[in-house]
Amino acid sequence: MSLLISGATVIDGVSAEPLQDRSVWIQGSRIRAVGSVDHIGVPEDATVIDARGKYVIAGLMNANVHLLGDIRLENLVRYQDQYEALIVEAAQVALRNGLTTVFDTWGPRRFLMRARDRISAGEVSGSRLFCAGNIIGFEGPFSADFIPGAQAVASASLVRRINSIWVENVGRHLMWLTPQQVAAEVRTYIRKGIDFLKYASNEHYWAAAGAFLQFSPLVQRAIVEEAHRAGLRAQAHCMTVEGLRIAIEAGCDLITHCNITGPVPIPESTLDLFVKGQVGAVIFPWTERGLEWLRGHVTDMEWTMWQASDTNARNLIRSGAPLLLANDGALFSPETGHDPLYSNSWGAAPEELSLISLATGHFLWLKAMEEKGCPPMRMLQAATRNIAVAYGKADELGTVEAGKIADLLILDQNPLLAAENYRSIAGVIKDGVVIDRNRLPTNPLLTRTADPPVEEEAHYKSSLSSGPRLPFCPLCMHL
Amino acid sequence: MSLLISGATVIDGVSAEPLQDRSVWIQGSRIRAVGSVDHIGVPEDATVIDARGKYVIAGLMNANVHLLGDIRLENLVRYQDQYEALIVEAAQVALRNGLTTVFDTWGPRRFLMRARDRISAGEVSGSRLFCAGNIIGFEGPFSADFIPGAQAVASASLVRRINSIWVENVGRHLMWLTPQQVAAEVRTYIRKGIDFLKYASNEHYWAAAGAFLQFSPLVQRAIVEEAHRAGLRAQAHCMTVEGLRIAIEAGCDLITHCNITGPVPIPESTLDLFVKGQVGAVIFPWTERGLEWLRGHVTDMEWTMWQASDTNARNLIRSGAPLLLANDGALFSPETGHDPLYSNSWGAAPEELSLISLATGHFLWLKAMEEKGCPPMRMLQAATRNIAVAYGKADELGTVEAGKIADLLILDQNPLLAAENYRSIAGVIKDGVVIDRNRLPTNPLLTRTADPPVEEEAHYKSSLSSGPRLPFCPLCMHL
Amino acid sequence: MSLLISGATVIDGVSAEPLQDRSVWIQGSRIRAVGSVDHIGVPEDATVIDARGKYVIAGLMNANVHLLGDIRLENLVRYQDQYEALIVEAAQVALRNGLTTVFDTWGPRRFLMRARDRISAGEVSGSRLFCAGNIIGFEGPFSADFIPGAQAVASASLVRRINSIWVENVGRHLMWLTPQQVAAEVRTYIRKGIDFLKYASNEHYWAAAGAFLQFSPLVQRAIVEEAHRAGLRAQAHCMTVEGLRIAIEAGCDLITHCNITGPVPIPESTLDLFVKGQVGAVIFPWTERGLEWLRGHVTDMEWTMWQASDTNARNLIRSGAPLLLANDGALFSPETGHDPLYSNSWGAAPEELSLISLATGHFLWLKAMEEKGCPPMRMLQAATRNIAVAYGKADELGTVEAGKIADLLILDQNPLLAAENYRSIAGVIKDGVVIDRNRLPTNPLLTRTADPPVEEEAHYKSSLSSGPRLPFCPLCMHL
Amino acid sequence: MSLLISGATVIDGVSAEPLQDRSVWIQGSRIRAVGSVDHIGVPEDATVIDARGKYVIAGLMNANVHLLGDIRLENLVRYQDQYEALIVEAAQVALRNGLTTVFDTWGPRRFLMRARDRISAGEVSGSRLFCAGNIIGFEGPFSADFIPGAQAVASASLVRRINSIWVENVGRHLMWLTPQQVAAEVRTYIRKGIDFLKYASNEHYWAAAGAFLQFSPLVQRAIVEEAHRAGLRAQAHCMTVEGLRIAIEAGCDLITHCNITGPVPIPESTLDLFVKGQVGAVIFPWTERGLEWLRGHVTDMEWTMWQASDTNARNLIRSGAPLLLANDGALFSPETGHDPLYSNSWGAAPEELSLISLATGHFLWLKAMEEKGCPPMRMLQAATRNIAVAYGKADELGTVEAGKIADLLILDQNPLLAAENYRSIAGVIKDGVVIDRNRLPTNPLLTRTADPPVEEEAHYKSSLSSGPRLPFCPLCMHL
Repeated sequence: MSLLISGATVIDGVSAEPLQDRSVWIQGSRIRAVGSVDHIGVPEDATVIDARGKYVIAGLMNANVHLLGDIRLENLVRYQDQYEALIVEAAQVALRNGLTTVFDTWGPRRFLMRARDRISAGEVSGSRLFCAGNIIGFEGPFSADFIPGAQAVASASLVRRINSIWVENVGRHLMWLTPQQVAAEVRTYIRKGIDFLKYASNEHYWAAAGAFLQFSPLVQRAIVEEAHRAGLRAQAHCMTVEGLRIAIEAGCDLITHCNITGPVPIPESTLDLFVKGQVGAVIFPWTERGLEWLRGHVTDMEWTMWQASDTNARNLIRSGAPLLLANDGALFSPETGHDPLYSNSWGAAPEELSLISLATGHFLWLKAMEEKGCPPMRMLQAATRNIAVAYGKADELGTVEAGKIADLLILDQNPLLAAENYRSIAGVIKDGVVIDRNRLPTNPLLTRTADPPVEEEAHYKSSLSSGPRLPFCPLCMHL
Repeated sequence: MSLLISGATVIDGVSAEPLQDRSVWIQGSRIRAVGSVDHIGVPEDATVIDARGKYVIAGLMNANVHLLGDIRLENLVRYQDQYEALIVEAAQVALRNGLTTVFDTWGPRRFLMRARDRISAGEVSGSRLFCAGNIIGFEGPFSADFIPGAQAVASASLVRRINSIWVENVGRHLMWLTPQQVAAEVRTYIRKGIDFLKYASNEHYWAAAGAFLQFSPLVQRAIVEEAHRAGLRAQAHCMTVEGLRIAIEAGCDLITHCNITGPVPIPESTLDLFVKGQVGAVIFPWTERGLEWLRGHVTDMEWTMWQASDTNARNLIRSGAPLLLANDGALFSPETGHDPLYSNSWGAAPEELSLISLATGHFLWLKAMEEKGCPPMRMLQAATRNIAVAYGKADELGTVEAGKIADLLILDQNPLLAAENYRSIAGVIKDGVVIDRNRLPTNPLLTRTADPPVEEEAHYKSSLSSGPRLPFCPLCMHL
Repeated sequence: MSLLISGATVIDGVSAEPLQDRSVWIQGSRIRAVGSVDHIGVPEDATVIDARGKYVIAGLMNANVHLLGDIRLENLVRYQDQYEALIVEAAQVALRNGLTTVFDTWGPRRFLMRARDRISAGEVSGSRLFCAGNIIGFEGPFSADFIPGAQAVASASLVRRINSIWVENVGRHLMWLTPQQVAAEVRTYIRKGIDFLKYASNEHYWAAAGAFLQFSPLVQRAIVEEAHRAGLRAQAHCMTVEGLRIAIEAGCDLITHCNITGPVPIPESTLDLFVKGQVGAVIFPWTERGLEWLRGHVTDMEWTMWQASDTNARNLIRSGAPLLLANDGALFSPETGHDPLYSNSWGAAPEELSLISLATGHFLWLKAMEEKGCPPMRMLQAATRNIAVAYGKADELGTVEAGKIADLLILDQNPLLAAENYRSIAGVIKDGVVIDRNRLPTNPLLTRTADPPVEEEAHYKSSLSSGPRLPFCPLCMHL
Repeated sequence: MSLLISGATVIDGVSAEPLQDRSVWIQGSRIRAVGSVDHIGVPEDATVIDARGKYVIAGLMNANVHLLGDIRLENLVRYQDQYEALIVEAAQVALRNGLTTVFDTWGPRRFLMRARDRISAGEVSGSRLFCAGNIIGFEGPFSADFIPGAQAVASASLVRRINSIWVENVGRHLMWLTPQQVAAEVRTYIRKGIDFLKYASNEHYWAAAGAFLQFSPLVQRAIVEEAHRAGLRAQAHCMTVEGLRIAIEAGCDLITHCNITGPVPIPESTLDLFVKGQVGAVIFPWTERGLEWLRGHVTDMEWTMWQASDTNARNLIRSGAPLLLANDGALFSPETGHDPLYSNSWGAAPEELSLISLATGHFLWLKAMEEKGCPPMRMLQAATRNIAVAYGKADELGTVEAGKIADLLILDQNPLLAAENYRSIAGVIKDGVVIDRNRLPTNPLLTRTADPPVEEEAHYKSSLSSGPRLPFCPLCMHL
């Protein structure tokens, strides 16, 4: 039995131009041939998909997602026995939206690997998943690196349990160690079975008044060497121009949200390093409408920083660095929407402007890059082939070529004409199988309909019974 | 079929002296007769319990428990669909330890009532349960009244949901209203089916620098009148000598932890009010060993207050007020033990000294009162009959008399000789049925064995990877 | 030597109508006569002020000011040896702006009394000053009642020193005591020489979710009786309808900002109590423009409360209660203007809308009351005679009558035509002496020109070097 | 006129052994000759100090003091016009206690330089003073680097003013910049007239969970090169083994508290770098009694770190690195002693154990190093000659040799026999002048007697009227 996509315009990610009137013949999970309709014909036993007037591209990839991204205390407690299910759900939301492969760059290793293996074995549907586990050097969700307030209300045993699940032996304590000592810890961690490695060149917190370096260049080099020695690619979390330069010089293969460098644009010499080393530049871009929203909602200081990030994005496009699509994509509990807890963050941007939605953020990415003048073919490659190359998966993934794994999208509209057209998904094929997108996710947890209010909420006098004390007296500062 | 407890010494709660060589004959859920062994004989069909050398008393009561007392964020989320089960579990722990009736004075009304009704219908085993729901005037668990920090990490929708379940229409907003307006809200709340009413005379928080009044005397009177008009007894939460006096003058039937009045002992005139009105004095007493622990662990200011509370307890014994046993008894999750979150509180007292254990606190109460010179018979009545009287249940409960509900304890040792002997429970009978104590609780949740550590905890470098920043620089104040 | 104001229209505060073509003859500090120009003529040795076309009224009074109102840590430390000078400066700003008498209702007693006595002895110029010292029941500036955060950065000895200066023996600890015990403390405090007494019926903090009562009715009555026994008037700080009613029933002579009662309007029965007891109703009113500003800047909850306060103000005008002008008037350090610390408060209202300016707030008060329909003559009395009556000073102050102390304003415009005309001050006479307003304040401290920036500020990279951490990561809650 | 110290044992800091029966002949501010008593004789006009039986050494130096070290909000406001006077006072306390030269490594540059210049010009007495101004990369006193809480109660203008005075153009914002950009800022700062340069290799905060790097190696090298190009010595603030190694490799001349590297001891390879580069190792050592106190008062985690610091101190002694005496010496306001604000810090150690006392800490340093086995002559050099060498002042200071500046101590006891003997100061000579130690400080501010309590404190009911709320309810977490 085989599958034939017939009569499509194929944008294979390799050829300079789209190839018209082509058939893609799939056998098992692999592409057997791509050729003209006439040349390939209709193989015996082949199921035929008539794709005349449509466009076939490689399945989209996302270089930076967090499949278990809703790390709020209540979420991690509520689903404490279902972390794997949450990850599978997110991988299914990704697949439904055209992402056939995602790279999870921070999350609970054990559960990510289990979900990865079950998807890989075909036990459950979902986006192909590669994972890094913890970001080397970061502490866990309930620490100064993420949600410090949790330690004030959670039991010490819960804090320890959650943090240990995320961190294991590669947390902040590495900052005290010598390069040799760090290397030994990283080696141990790699052996647990991660697919690639991510570490912190800069701290996670984005201080208004400067971002610290987490590891020295020698330590960074030692970390990257451990990854390479184990055959893994390495990436870095950067937040300053120095953090960025050090990471590249340490030999990193790709850099997360590399256009975010505080108020100071990336120097030309560092842009050159990207190009010379063909280091993957994972861009975090805002659309014009998104930038407009930011200007109206964030402080002057933060706005200065987003402006620099936009300049960087444009300069990276200009430079010729290998661009990579990513958005820190995550799912959130239904009650999180518009939660005041996040209201002082750019995360409060309305969903149609917010990159971090796992379901739609990649479409916004493409839109944003189009607005900044990125050529259509480079955008397609940023969303497919470049990611495969950066992560060392180019032998199998990222293009529509004979021999590659059959991860494909069929689009109704030409994606090279407008970024918007990536949304016109007519079909998703993964591992040679047509995905029934309407079934996904199969077990909705975070994507379920929000629970209705309990009956007591109806007669609760909320309007005057909760919230902070009001500042009545002008002499007082009730802080 | 009937039940005969034969040959026991009966301390019936009414007679001045224990009655020796008596039989208690139970038919259905009622005591049919109490008389000499010879007089009663062995009724046909009666199951006989040979109680020679043992002691029979009325089942113990607890005037103030919180069956859902572990209100930490993680607990309320983890068990969000099992509040009723948590309450039943606690009621079973109480029953197992000789408490045949408990009065829950603060908790989620809807779930308390459901548990009450299921126990009452015999669907599940458990201590007989009467409940007040919310304390009129208090906000919910995630508010300034209980755990303010929760609002900093929980979603607004969760905060609202939890608070509304506890508070409904009788929270802090009542403080803005006139007596008539408050009365109307209380009337609505009573109609939901609570068994008695509790309100705040003083605020919940115990300020070092004084405790506020929550409601004016007129409002308090209006609240109490609503309760009485509905046939319910009313109690008040008090923290100051003025709060106490106002509550008694408002007509309260009993006062929670009435010996806790900050640094100022209760005036004689107020002690007199207790006696004249026969107002139930719910005492919260520490044993000598407990006081010794406090002296070594709390601030001078707090110690001053506990000293005054001890003086009050002794004065109340002396005064002749009706004393009531209670301890705010609650169960806590296994991981809570020794949690640093509670370490700055008297709640950190070791379990063998801590009154608040639902399983054992009542035994400590009896021990403490014995040490303060309370006569044995008054202690027995404080733990049984007085509570029944104060809550208007004396027709049915609280003594070993013909016609009463057959809630009984059989003790191996004489409780009038030493308070310690209340622990020597040989049998618990509730509603005329011998309780299989070993089966309780039937569905252990909080009383289950603590979960073992997850595997990641074994290699987590906790010793140097979490916790607060250390104060290195002596010039700095890192607060 | 004497002084003659000749040919003015006199609005004496007693007559139903203005008296035209009158002379006011002043001898020493007293008014010797008020009569027609012809009748009085020109006494020998009299200095004549030609006031034809002008208006003479009694000097304005302010029933509630805080002459040392800037209680921020830096201010109390910077001027730690000059509290008396700060108070004198404020009294001079008041006098310059037509306030010949002010009542300080919260401040450091010892320094207020010294300033009072020096002004009274003629050693320094300034508004006539009466003071209450502490508000009975409140803690000091660096406490939960005012600026809690100060305790986190100030030395324990400074906190104690400042709080003791404000509080002495009448702070929060009174909340623990019986009526008799409180009365004894108040008696001690009165003997220190205060002019009137103020106590807390409600707590100072204005909680979103209800305001507590600070003292029981019996304690309030005991406090008021101590004041009356010593010949002093008593006032209360109220924040709820119950607090208000209790204070009036306790016998208070006047109530501060009595129109502020949270979201619930004052019931008619309480309005009646004001009228029957002729209790002074100190109103805190916003102008229409001020209300408009509030609606745009405060939360819905706070707006609800301001709306109720406006309803109360209108109802109090309608009721016939004796109205009193006051505004919590205070001076602030020049660097305080637009300080972000106050930005979440109504105190952030622009100066032209803000009642709390000691220099101009009384003019806004008159404007606001005019907008609410208060008749012109009642407003004049609210600003003069009613205050004298409420504080028991009507024998000496508040009207333009022979025998009264000669505290007068000469206005260019008719104040009965428009509230705005109170600003047209042509002359201020106090104790029979024409005040040289341009000299005031004689020793500017808070009213000095703000210090220029130090030289380092010019090259300080402030734009990116201070402030809170920025919320970069949408997964985090950095609270 | 000249000065002759006659008959002393001279320990000149150069010779291997003490020189007995020597005379030191001083002319003007210089040592003219050191020789045998007979050889030098008694020059005409010389004032003779009979030093038989006594010991002469070079004046002590301190490589790391903070002459304006009490940076609490109240202190900086109280003395806002007297920063220079505070610095002079501290320099006089230092001189009185035998420190003839001190190096201020963090403080307000403008005021330090003025004090330096006035001391240097002989206008005021005081320890010879060299200063660095700000630590390149640190923010000011009221920032996350020092006292974060200050921003919650101080006006924005005060925060800005204070921070700008300390920081100028070399604060945290440098962390965003490239090496070239940082170099330009440092160049500008050097031109203001500082004597040496200090920068942050690690952040200031000492995190329990790791300390960040503040500047990359390239930036560090750029900073050091700017210092060297301007003829200044450079030192680094380090907190980790990586921070230390990077700083040495960047070319630093000396390293502050280099033995403090968290829980991880300095590797041998880094110890070798100290020796090869003859980099000044500024040690921060505890005495045995001090360590004992720490073990009883700090957390296990902090204790681990102090243990490592002790190991490092011993290893540095063993290694042969040039050791330097320093203690972060500072003066504090009298009310600071035992202030609870500092109680959670090692700064709470009793004064007799605390290194940071400017008056006595250097004696403790010598005692501590003696206990760790440091040879007496190396200790003497660590306190004199090595500091002069490290800071490039060896031509003028640090030894008792002809031609050097005449900064000398005369001791009653032999300092080579016991470190304790350094306290036996019989005379201090600076610039050839005998110091009248009893006159110092000439204008006591922080060293004045503490102010007596104000009268209100006597009757303030402090015992029950301030402080935090007490945790009454065991269900609550009032955090």
